[in-house]
Amino acid sequence: MPQSVKVALLGCGTVGSEVVRLLHEQEHDLTARIGAPLELVGVAVRRLGRARELPIDPGLFTTDALGLVARDDVDIVVEVVGGIEPARTWLLEALHAGKSVVTANKALLGEDGATLHKAAADCGADLYYEASVAGAIPLLRPLRESLHGDRITRVTGIVNGTTNFILSSMDETGAGYAEALEEATALGYAEADPTADVEGFDAAAKAAILASMAFHSRVTSADVYREGITEVTAADVASAKAMGSTIKLLCIASKANGAVSVRVHPAMIPRTHPLAGVSDAFNAVFVEAEAAGQLMFYGRGAGGAPTASAVLGDVVAVARNRLAGVRSASESAYADLPVSPIGDVLTRYHISLDVSDKAGVLAAVAGVFAKHGVSIATVNQSGRGNQAVLVIVTHAAPDRALAATVAELRALDIVRAVASVLRVEGE
Amino acid sequence: MPQSVKVALLGCGTVGSEVVRLLHEQEHDLTARIGAPLELVGVAVRRLGRARELPIDPGLFTTDALGLVARDDVDIVVEVVGGIEPARTWLLEALHAGKSVVTANKALLGEDGATLHKAAADCGADLYYEASVAGAIPLLRPLRESLHGDRITRVTGIVNGTTNFILSSMDETGAGYAEALEEATALGYAEADPTADVEGFDAAAKAAILASMAFHSRVTSADVYREGITEVTAADVASAKAMGSTIKLLCIASKANGAVSVRVHPAMIPRTHPLAGVSDAFNAVFVEAEAAGQLMFYGRGAGGAPTASAVLGDVVAVARNRLAGVRSASESAYADLPVSPIGDVLTRYHISLDVSDKAGVLAAVAGVFAKHGVSIATVNQSGRGNQAVLVIVTHAAPDRALAATVAELRALDIVRAVASVLRVEGE
Repeated sequence: MPQSVKVALLGCGTVGSEVVRLLHEQEHDLTARIGAPLELVGVAVRRLGRARELPIDPGLFTTDALGLVARDDVDIVVEVVGGIEPARTWLLEALHAGKSVVTANKALLGEDGATLHKAAADCGADLYYEASVAGAIPLLRPLRESLHGDRITRVTGIVNGTTNFILSSMDETGAGYAEALEEATALGYAEADPTADVEGFDAAAKAAILASMAFHSRVTSADVYREGITEVTAADVASAKAMGSTIKLLCIASKANGAVSVRVHPAMIPRTHPLAGVSDAFNAVFVEAEAAGQLMFYGRGAGGAPTASAVLGDVVAVARNRLAGVRSASESAYADLPVSPIGDVLTRYHISLDVSDKAGVLAAVAGVFAKHGVSIATVNQSGRGNQAVLVIVTHAAPDRALAATVAELRALDIVRAVASVLRVEGE
Repeated sequence: MPQSVKVALLGCGTVGSEVVRLLHEQEHDLTARIGAPLELVGVAVRRLGRARELPIDPGLFTTDALGLVARDDVDIVVEVVGGIEPARTWLLEALHAGKSVVTANKALLGEDGATLHKAAADCGADLYYEASVAGAIPLLRPLRESLHGDRITRVTGIVNGTTNFILSSMDETGAGYAEALEEATALGYAEADPTADVEGFDAAAKAAILASMAFHSRVTSADVYREGITEVTAADVASAKAMGSTIKLLCIASKANGAVSVRVHPAMIPRTHPLAGVSDAFNAVFVEAEAAGQLMFYGRGAGGAPTASAVLGDVVAVARNRLAGVRSASESAYADLPVSPIGDVLTRYHISLDVSDKAGVLAAVAGVFAKHGVSIATVNQSGRGNQAVLVIVTHAAPDRALAATVAELRALDIVRAVASVLRVEGE
């Protein structure tokens, strides 16, 4: 049997501890699958001396991550610290030293994946990051490898467990956003500062990674149009229900006419859509490809054990590559496709208006849509005394035209309030 | 750029034609992803001279498949003919000659995968068969590779589109089996002789492949306990509905206490289960792993283009391996775990009895369950004149004990009929 493949671990929190545990518990299976044992040779942590009930020699802990990744006896660097710096510096150092890298760092990959990919290619090292999107769900490898003979046209994902928990809870109980957030926080699904989740930053980084992978192009988090869920109201959720739909925070990446569009925003989807049944903190990614048709990948998006499972799958792959003396050759054919601004993206709106109930209102409202070239799919009017509620669902139109339509509706005298505006997807 | 990678195609029906079309249409992308062009050097067909509107030189067609696979200039053999022979002979010949093999042949893999795997290992050749289970869904590669650092405990799949179409239609319309089969045949979802689908043979072959992959053990179609859907009645479907469940033909592979159990049969699953929403001819496979938790893979299980997409994904992988001078090293660590007989498998039954409505009936029925050590979870009795319907759902018990219970119930005087017996899964 060949000598061991040596692993350095950066970070030993929730995910890192699970990686250590799995390496230990599954030692026998891992050795059989790789053809050589994996050996943990160092664990970089912020502070030594914290109580860690882990089945490893305490002498493996170090606070010198940079020194660890450059050690001659390290073959694979596993990073589960997160954040842009110092993780980027460490991983670039590792790649430049010819180490293979496995990381769960969505923020770094989303912001600056290109630099890491270039370093990996220049140095003949592997860079794997299955755990960075949708936790345990094997997703990036199928996108990168299994669908290589096909053309992906669109990826629609629920990739943030916190917001999906909140929206599922609003849908089930009729609660408002604040109340549902409070519940999510109490149950540990939302962090004390939930901004990264509820404002869609986390989903946007994952959307950038997914789009890059699906379309073989470079997309960064900054390219992603982003709206969070903080404005979603109980009335919006009720409105969706009345239409046989539910509201999800979606990340959508699509490719048309040689350009890519990538966006994260809440949207109504019909309850018959496979993504509608994805509840609680689960994640799922719906993929449309020219030949394969519709595919969906579903599972846990976060948590120590699920994320560690994805990390270990990558570790096995890169360990095998090292033993075979090869690297995964997938990054050679990247294009730099233009990214369409949100205004150009074709989408549909669901608009709910409080209007005065008098003659000519519908004609005036319809006139605004017509002026902006937006075609109306359905109208539903219900009266309440001298007021009425108009619910309008449009056909697909450029987002710019839809936004302009809403702005003009807001300014109409007969429109007392634009009660809700939501995009409609998945039909 | 390296010289081309040469492909021989065996079979040019629905799937084969799509493979040819994709090779042609995506020539540029495939070359970029592989690092060398793919070149189709021969297509073996049963009869020359059939009109084929394909973008290739008619001179490539041959009826001599065995001669084609042994040609010195062939690197990869793609087989989309199906059936045990002559496909096995051709593929063994190809592997012995050092060619890599990509096949969609579930029957052959299910019956005799071990022989093919051994030939591939002995000759240092690749054997890929993503398209053999669940068509376009990238499934085998994630099981084989992404979850390598984890332990799969159970795989539950809807892997036959024909039967899922029939059961979905019975669920939606209340139709009986015969009527739904007729519809499926008219729409092209069922073949003129539907035996392989409706009796579960097709699903059993796929179950064997899935179990082998998930548990790194050798399981053949003959090891799979099999019941088809021909006995499922409109009353069963209505009964499931009343319980908030639906009936699906499931393939279930699980591992416990060092043994594997693999079975295909109709079962009730709750409508809240992710598999319950898989309708029409779609397929899905639900995977439970120790660390990853619950995962599901969903997509089209059949059809020319979806299957060809999976074939092409494999072709890209093996073409890259050939250029890198390596083979996928995943088959070295196979165990030969024992396969549990169905009688040992723990499952739950839903039993519907027509009984006389008189004193002592429930006590007598309950006594039969108790005698066989089967614990009752719920009982529901509804009267109809001097008759009553008893619906009993059990807790998990060995299938043998449940079967013996049902046999004894049938023999009771007070039981007029055992109206339906269905297994219950997914709770």
